[in-house]
Amino acid sequence: MIITMAMGASSSQIDAVADAIREKGFDPLVLPGQDRTAIGIPASLNADQRVDIESMVANMEGVSKVTQTSRPYKLASREAHRENTIVSFGDVRVGDGSFVVMAGPCSIESYDQFLTAAQMVKSAGGNVLRGGAFKPRTSPYAFQGLHLEGLKIMRAVGEQVGIATITEVMSGDMVNTVAEYVDVLQIGARSMQNFPLLIEAGKSGKPVFLKRGPSATIDEFLLAAEYVMSQGNPNVILCERGIVALDKAYTRNTLDLAAVPVLKEHSHLPVIVDPSHGTGVARYVSPMAKAALVAGADGVMVEMHPNPKEALSDGSQALTPPQFEQFMAETRRLERALRDLSAT
Amino acid sequence: MIITMAMGASSSQIDAVADAIREKGFDPLVLPGQDRTAIGIPASLNADQRVDIESMVANMEGVSKVTQTSRPYKLASREAHRENTIVSFGDVRVGDGSFVVMAGPCSIESYDQFLTAAQMVKSAGGNVLRGGAFKPRTSPYAFQGLHLEGLKIMRAVGEQVGIATITEVMSGDMVNTVAEYVDVLQIGARSMQNFPLLIEAGKSGKPVFLKRGPSATIDEFLLAAEYVMSQGNPNVILCERGIVALDKAYTRNTLDLAAVPVLKEHSHLPVIVDPSHGTGVARYVSPMAKAALVAGADGVMVEMHPNPKEALSDGSQALTPPQFEQFMAETRRLERALRDLSAT
Amino acid sequence: MIITMAMGASSSQIDAVADAIREKGFDPLVLPGQDRTAIGIPASLNADQRVDIESMVANMEGVSKVTQTSRPYKLASREAHRENTIVSFGDVRVGDGSFVVMAGPCSIESYDQFLTAAQMVKSAGGNVLRGGAFKPRTSPYAFQGLHLEGLKIMRAVGEQVGIATITEVMSGDMVNTVAEYVDVLQIGARSMQNFPLLIEAGKSGKPVFLKRGPSATIDEFLLAAEYVMSQGNPNVILCERGIVALDKAYTRNTLDLAAVPVLKEHSHLPVIVDPSHGTGVARYVSPMAKAALVAGADGVMVEMHPNPKEALSDGSQALTPPQFEQFMAETRRLERALRDLSAT
Amino acid sequence: MIITMAMGASSSQIDAVADAIREKGFDPLVLPGQDRTAIGIPASLNADQRVDIESMVANMEGVSKVTQTSRPYKLASREAHRENTIVSFGDVRVGDGSFVVMAGPCSIESYDQFLTAAQMVKSAGGNVLRGGAFKPRTSPYAFQGLHLEGLKIMRAVGEQVGIATITEVMSGDMVNTVAEYVDVLQIGARSMQNFPLLIEAGKSGKPVFLKRGPSATIDEFLLAAEYVMSQGNPNVILCERGIVALDKAYTRNTLDLAAVPVLKEHSHLPVIVDPSHGTGVARYVSPMAKAALVAGADGVMVEMHPNPKEALSDGSQALTPPQFEQFMAETRRLERALRDLSAT
Repeated sequence: MIITMAMGASSSQIDAVADAIREKGFDPLVLPGQDRTAIGIPASLNADQRVDIESMVANMEGVSKVTQTSRPYKLASREAHRENTIVSFGDVRVGDGSFVVMAGPCSIESYDQFLTAAQMVKSAGGNVLRGGAFKPRTSPYAFQGLHLEGLKIMRAVGEQVGIATITEVMSGDMVNTVAEYVDVLQIGARSMQNFPLLIEAGKSGKPVFLKRGPSATIDEFLLAAEYVMSQGNPNVILCERGIVALDKAYTRNTLDLAAVPVLKEHSHLPVIVDPSHGTGVARYVSPMAKAALVAGADGVMVEMHPNPKEALSDGSQALTPPQFEQFMAETRRLERALRDLSAT
Repeated sequence: MIITMAMGASSSQIDAVADAIREKGFDPLVLPGQDRTAIGIPASLNADQRVDIESMVANMEGVSKVTQTSRPYKLASREAHRENTIVSFGDVRVGDGSFVVMAGPCSIESYDQFLTAAQMVKSAGGNVLRGGAFKPRTSPYAFQGLHLEGLKIMRAVGEQVGIATITEVMSGDMVNTVAEYVDVLQIGARSMQNFPLLIEAGKSGKPVFLKRGPSATIDEFLLAAEYVMSQGNPNVILCERGIVALDKAYTRNTLDLAAVPVLKEHSHLPVIVDPSHGTGVARYVSPMAKAALVAGADGVMVEMHPNPKEALSDGSQALTPPQFEQFMAETRRLERALRDLSAT
Repeated sequence: MIITMAMGASSSQIDAVADAIREKGFDPLVLPGQDRTAIGIPASLNADQRVDIESMVANMEGVSKVTQTSRPYKLASREAHRENTIVSFGDVRVGDGSFVVMAGPCSIESYDQFLTAAQMVKSAGGNVLRGGAFKPRTSPYAFQGLHLEGLKIMRAVGEQVGIATITEVMSGDMVNTVAEYVDVLQIGARSMQNFPLLIEAGKSGKPVFLKRGPSATIDEFLLAAEYVMSQGNPNVILCERGIVALDKAYTRNTLDLAAVPVLKEHSHLPVIVDPSHGTGVARYVSPMAKAALVAGADGVMVEMHPNPKEALSDGSQALTPPQFEQFMAETRRLERALRDLSAT
Repeated sequence: MIITMAMGASSSQIDAVADAIREKGFDPLVLPGQDRTAIGIPASLNADQRVDIESMVANMEGVSKVTQTSRPYKLASREAHRENTIVSFGDVRVGDGSFVVMAGPCSIESYDQFLTAAQMVKSAGGNVLRGGAFKPRTSPYAFQGLHLEGLKIMRAVGEQVGIATITEVMSGDMVNTVAEYVDVLQIGARSMQNFPLLIEAGKSGKPVFLKRGPSATIDEFLLAAEYVMSQGNPNVILCERGIVALDKAYTRNTLDLAAVPVLKEHSHLPVIVDPSHGTGVARYVSPMAKAALVAGADGVMVEMHPNPKEALSDGSQALTPPQFEQFMAETRRLERALRDLSAT
């Protein structure tokens, strides 16, 4: 940890910080600079000690900034866990080197609509069936999902078609209910820092699919994963789904694809990319999904709808059935080609 | 509503969109442009019609973009409600032209700490006592608040000192519990789009203090207010607390002070500014609070702590007691001066 | 063009706008909405008419916003020019379906350093040699380049090794000088809206490699290209090089890879990606370059240095010679595999 | 300076960095952390030493990040120059505690238009006359200014009316020409990192009004000032004019008003706020200008136009003459009230 003192901090302020660190049992190193002094703590601090010392010194007079030289996450860090984590459910293994495709409509609208979608996903080679029963919508006047009826449809369709399922849960008190019906709990971008929800999802022990918030930094994202993991649940899948866009005229969000190698380097958790929300435009889904594959992602989540024209939500980013089939064929071919290349 | 067709959309695609609008009972106006055609709907659509038509056409072939010429919020709009809304609780009236100061520590840490803070707030002329019982913290290893014990302290201290109280509620299932203990329910920036929470807060009928999310647009912010109001609760206070910063080296967030006149123009709801989170630096709180007053805000929420050096959270942005007293004196003097100026 | 009136605009204000449009020779269509009226102009406006009418109505009373339904660029638009533009120089053709690799050190530091770099680029299969003679540096105290001496080294080395060359020009009055020495004029991200420079680069007739500004929208980027093209120079290569990052802790910029399909859709100009500046981290260059290839880019620009440890600028994002060789081998293999896939 | 090593950096890599620092003549302090080691240099480095060491170590193996504990600017820093700098020209003194109002139309359109504007600015109590002769326009098809004729009008009108003048210069080769005609050289937001221009403006010795770039950090902004100052010109005025907006639906940019106290703390240079570009909306200019005054700014630059409806550029953000008069009256009254308050 490095404490940077303000310009013009007095020597008594500097001494006070150094003394406070000593009282906590650590040896401070004082580094005078050109226009300000820095104080380092050359020791291995655990997470609690870091928070403890940072809280203390941040409030002392003459302190300008506290910089952690360690990363703030622990369980999610590759440092703590060198091997890739593989999250398994049904016959799916996310993070084992395969490329997992999660697909389905934005919303579960009816048994027939969802069954048709599921059959298309399965027959085209998709691995996981997605669909929303509880829909977080920006406007209270938009379609909000079928709720419990949607969950029941999802379970029935998943069993009938023989495919694993994932759906979003929006609050902590619904975790157990949703967990009964599906294989994976999705936590949406707007809920990434819904801490009571993260804790309940952690307690459930179920695989958790965690979407990055639209303005979340990498550290905030991994700390949200840490909340889930700190409850004893190691089964977290990270999802990059686009961050807030500089320019909303052409895409809905900015897909931060470099987050894939960044997350794979700093964390052992599997990383999925959502190019449907990441761009908001159906015709950019395929190029960005393939780019995600090449960049090292463990899979993608894409929206497809049996009939996007009649979708009750987000139709403009959903692939049509023929588009989805073509997408799957191209993606699987690229996946094989990459495997061949890496074998040579 | 304006539907912009893609470049090169065929005339049959254009006709199909126009026909679909006619089937919904509206007359489309087709506007050919230099490189693309636009289709307008020259009618007063209500919120459901807007969503309905937008969902339909967004998925039609050849459609590039759907633009609403009406704003998406209704109850929160000044169009629907010309007069300023005044939110009243205890002896406080937010939005009546006075400048309301909400102050207190980030966290309720103990009865003594909180009582001391409350007495300072009250004696310096503050109007509402703030303090967190449930703390949303980025790291699971940071202090999370005293929970129910904190609520009890808040109620007891509020009654003892004679000051209205506000605290954050983080999930829908806690709304009723928190509502028993405090005057105003705060919904934090990270919960701005926690829709189940917004709905429960709406149902409670309690005054709701809604913070803008760090990457929320004005429309998203007012639609979050709309969620609360759509449950029959008109008592919403908007709070600008800083948006995600371009440059985090000097301030924690970017305080978007122009949001004050924007919100006051487009909505009738009162607007509070939080310069403590908005800058993250105690010494910028006073200038930005006064700027908020001059820009037309209905009040501020500021952090103060009896002893910031020992604060369990966010000490670096809290005012010390003497700083707070000076801040209050200066702010009240400026408020009076402005009143005198507008009277002349 | 759509003119959105303010809420509460009076009918005389609406009439005045409609009349003004009629005076310009166009027929306005008035579209009353729920809370505001919109006025459309259903005609093909050319660029001058658009600017003319927009300037006029933007200032009229009761007008809230003017929205162009046509894109503001013309020469850069695919509408105006359906086929892909191919920019040719030396034996290089950018935009013809091949994947062009431009590589070299950030700065030209000496004849020997640059010759070594050029030989490595050439022998590994790179197509264009890059290197800075005039370096835009954030700090005035950083190395600023060898200037004219650098240009001379670039020309000599390019001829000796037999490879096309590109370097940055920072001001309009230097365009002719730089144009004498190199094949392609690079306009840096910070100069994207240096309009006198764009105009001079346009007049030169030389191929222009235009980098997107760190906060430029797609429209602003294509309008910068339009400046060059409006001088009669169609040879513009667009370069996505990362936009301002939400999170600078792990990458220097956010590489906006979805800009590749967006730009290819809306413009006929070739698109190059710069993953070196786009991430700022040497080990992310290769995955992001391959992702760019898969996403449809016409090439990449990457930094390599014979000895990054001794680089005078930007060493942390430069590939070492063995890294560059491996990168080229993998990229060319992937390029061939993609060609095989698309042939099947 | 703090060098943070990568996770898993070997002890020989750590030793190599420490040795390299020793070779430069400094004593490194090695600080092992929980998951990575940091190396501090506890010495006062000057700017060249900082750049030198940073370039060296940034490229060494095992190095993850180099953090400067000193600020990168020197001449612009308040550390180097404790007293406020006052920039004087004509009878104007910027930074002496008064509140300077610079006003005028976006563009100089004709002698009559500009004379009318100048008389209004002067009679309403404005201090400096602004107006563009060379206009940086996003589109090449928009009005670009009257160029040399505009400069001549500006000088003639300024002399006739008796008011100091400011106009933008867009390239280094025009600095001397522009400097002949006006009192202050303005460098626009898009030119903030046009380094050849900064250097020429520095050499001219003229007062330089430097606008912050739309995505510039505070450090980048002050380093741009440093470029001017490093040429021996201390007369730099900083201008906050809004940064790239998260939400462009209601304002054109996000005015970062907290930059005022930040800049005043870290630099001795005067700070002006431009609420016209900062919001892009005429009716938000007055509240934000007053907020700037209260927040500690040394003045504002605002756009006014004798007839905004007929303005050739940016009419929607220009104040009309009666609005400007009211704005001036209110601002001067507030200025006096603040002076009275601080006197008590």
